[in-house]
Amino acid sequence: MSTQTATTTLDDVIPAIVDWCEADADARTELLRRPTQAVAAQTRSAVADVLDDVRTRGDDALRELTERFDRVVLEDFEVGVDEFAAAEAAVPVELREAMVNAAARIERFHAAGMTAGYNVDTADGVNCARIVRPIPRVGLYVPAGTAPLPSTALMLGVPSRLAGCREVVLCTPPRPDGSADPAVLVAARLTGVHRVFKLGGAQAIAAMAFGTARVPACDKLFGPGNSFVTEAKQQVAQGGTVAIDMPAGPSEVLVIADAGADVAFVAADLLSQAEHGPDSQVLLLSDDDALLENVRAELSTQLAALPRAAIARQAMARSRLLRVDTLDTAFDISNRYAPEHLILALRTPRDWLDHVEVAGSVFLGDWTPEALGDYCSGTNHVLPTGGAARAWSGVSVSSFQNTVSVQSANAAGIRAIGPDAVTMARAEGLDAHANAVALRIAKAAA
Amino acid sequence: MSTQTATTTLDDVIPAIVDWCEADADARTELLRRPTQAVAAQTRSAVADVLDDVRTRGDDALRELTERFDRVVLEDFEVGVDEFAAAEAAVPVELREAMVNAAARIERFHAAGMTAGYNVDTADGVNCARIVRPIPRVGLYVPAGTAPLPSTALMLGVPSRLAGCREVVLCTPPRPDGSADPAVLVAARLTGVHRVFKLGGAQAIAAMAFGTARVPACDKLFGPGNSFVTEAKQQVAQGGTVAIDMPAGPSEVLVIADAGADVAFVAADLLSQAEHGPDSQVLLLSDDDALLENVRAELSTQLAALPRAAIARQAMARSRLLRVDTLDTAFDISNRYAPEHLILALRTPRDWLDHVEVAGSVFLGDWTPEALGDYCSGTNHVLPTGGAARAWSGVSVSSFQNTVSVQSANAAGIRAIGPDAVTMARAEGLDAHANAVALRIAKAAA
Repeated sequence: MSTQTATTTLDDVIPAIVDWCEADADARTELLRRPTQAVAAQTRSAVADVLDDVRTRGDDALRELTERFDRVVLEDFEVGVDEFAAAEAAVPVELREAMVNAAARIERFHAAGMTAGYNVDTADGVNCARIVRPIPRVGLYVPAGTAPLPSTALMLGVPSRLAGCREVVLCTPPRPDGSADPAVLVAARLTGVHRVFKLGGAQAIAAMAFGTARVPACDKLFGPGNSFVTEAKQQVAQGGTVAIDMPAGPSEVLVIADAGADVAFVAADLLSQAEHGPDSQVLLLSDDDALLENVRAELSTQLAALPRAAIARQAMARSRLLRVDTLDTAFDISNRYAPEHLILALRTPRDWLDHVEVAGSVFLGDWTPEALGDYCSGTNHVLPTGGAARAWSGVSVSSFQNTVSVQSANAAGIRAIGPDAVTMARAEGLDAHANAVALRIAKAAA
Repeated sequence: MSTQTATTTLDDVIPAIVDWCEADADARTELLRRPTQAVAAQTRSAVADVLDDVRTRGDDALRELTERFDRVVLEDFEVGVDEFAAAEAAVPVELREAMVNAAARIERFHAAGMTAGYNVDTADGVNCARIVRPIPRVGLYVPAGTAPLPSTALMLGVPSRLAGCREVVLCTPPRPDGSADPAVLVAARLTGVHRVFKLGGAQAIAAMAFGTARVPACDKLFGPGNSFVTEAKQQVAQGGTVAIDMPAGPSEVLVIADAGADVAFVAADLLSQAEHGPDSQVLLLSDDDALLENVRAELSTQLAALPRAAIARQAMARSRLLRVDTLDTAFDISNRYAPEHLILALRTPRDWLDHVEVAGSVFLGDWTPEALGDYCSGTNHVLPTGGAARAWSGVSVSSFQNTVSVQSANAAGIRAIGPDAVTMARAEGLDAHANAVALRIAKAAA
């Protein structure tokens, strides 16, 4: 009887299976609508105040804001030698080893995909090249809200080191005793981060964007965070002098499963997304009724056993279980939704890859849970959310690299292509442009 | 006597040569300060009004705004077959040929630098890959203020075609008679742009960002523009659903010249930047007094002969002629300034390339004026300004591409790396993540 009751309650939370093909255009739009991402005016102005305060009062503002928001008084924010040593001693050997292994795989994958230089002769006497330079100073944010995320330190630290950034700064919120999370510190050291500051929230973003006496100003800021952190990143980026990795929002997964998918695996993957936060979003698409119904039942069972069930239940209340006529339709829906994570729980998943037009990261087959990519497959877990996958990509080494074009002409080159430039410059009414070329053509002909 | 007077007037406009080494820290900051880029509150709210209007009233708003700002009544904004045909007939053969040549060189250079896919086995049974996809729908803006810029249509159109974007939309302001500039239309056709709309200013950006009944919504917007266009791009990008190529601002050049540089060439290059607009910025750095003084005199002479002298004179009034002790110092200054265009008028320019840490595009030696890159060397002329070169790169094919990571594990793979994921997930308190992996490890071991 008590089991019966529990099941009924959970069924109430998990939405019913909806047939996509029977939904009209409005209903379809509603089915794919994300939980609202509008930033409250209150958040916006609170963040603006913090940014102003740090910009004008520097470290004094940081000290006061840290006391107010993190409830800890810090004279110095920077992690020193002693605290790093204490962290090394505090982290369990098994966890350290897992992080070392993960960092090695992340490095192997990312190193193979770095942007490289090249050069091409585009005409006789004209060579055009791309040279690659690290972004000089980068700032990494590693959240530590409900739980610290050392994995994020690996995901940002490894590519910044591969790019060769001159100064890599990492901010992470202090704990109530004024120390930083030891696992985050070990991850930072593993990846060669140069300086770590115990700063959280919008004040950390402000410090790295504007610089203070203690914290260096950075050229580009990376990393996920709560709504204050992401709003602060958006606001500092508006000035056009500090870049950010991407707009961030709640995490999400879309699973496309066929009749042969493993019901327990699919349910576990949906729940591992749902436990991130109450605004996480979870979609399951299948052309098989039995799979959908079995996953729905399995979700109830697994959900009941989760420590973070309260959070997952809120997210599951907004989940979508969609019945599609064919897998082609499922891919159309996925491309329209543009998911951060896309799991293909299909028998021949690689054959379907051509159907993927937009997504942050794709997981192929039954043995590749999203959690592998979150931690240690080698790919990055800092990915575009909220549909941003249509125009943004996940973090890679190139996110930490600038490319510079370099052209070189000799006298033959200016004779070969100069006349085109003169013609086009005159057509655009830019005579000084034409003149700079014509002067050289004349001299090269002499 | 009259020559004497003219020279005196011009000398008044062109600032005196300043010795960098004798300037203190504050003076140096002032010397490298760019003309203010603060957006007037008036511009900001005018743009916000235009965006709101187009978002809510669509094509009706576009019609009214076009009448108000471009002083032309257009029933339909889209360029049709007849107008394209008329444009082909109207463009001089020589200009068409120059554009065809330029497009071919731009294509050759850009095609060699496209982001490519790759894959790596990061562990036994674990494969990680990057696949590359075009950004589905892109919007290109081609200004036509003081002069239409068909070259910009080439710079944006060629890489969008190489990337394979599904829908490429181009907006350019209508002329007083309601037609679009014929050269821009020919350039758009040459590069395979799919649809061209006669829309300018903030209303064009709004149309491509939000979509109307007539104009498709785009995922990413590209291209330069006046202060209204660039502010509109910044505002639509704040929502996090539309991406933009980069923050844009006034154009700028920094020239590093040695004693052997050609005085007339250097002066011509400085002026070709200055004619862009009154807020363009121009810096010349040299370790040779005679070169600096000779260029200063030559600037007066060449300036007097320019059709756009009024504009160039305003920009030259804010130019900097800096004497440095060594070329190393010149490169330190350049890296601090982070110029859009960097001309190395040096005897062995390639030997100095390692000193370039940040810049948009570099021009090597006496025979490579900036105007070559602006039109037809093969590189792109849509480049980061205002110091944005520290964290942004010029437009390339990758600006039109998304990368998607793809991972695939088999049972051996989950056995090999799954335990690391479980350990890290538990350390982060994410039990559903650990569970999704542990379930598979158990089944793989069975």
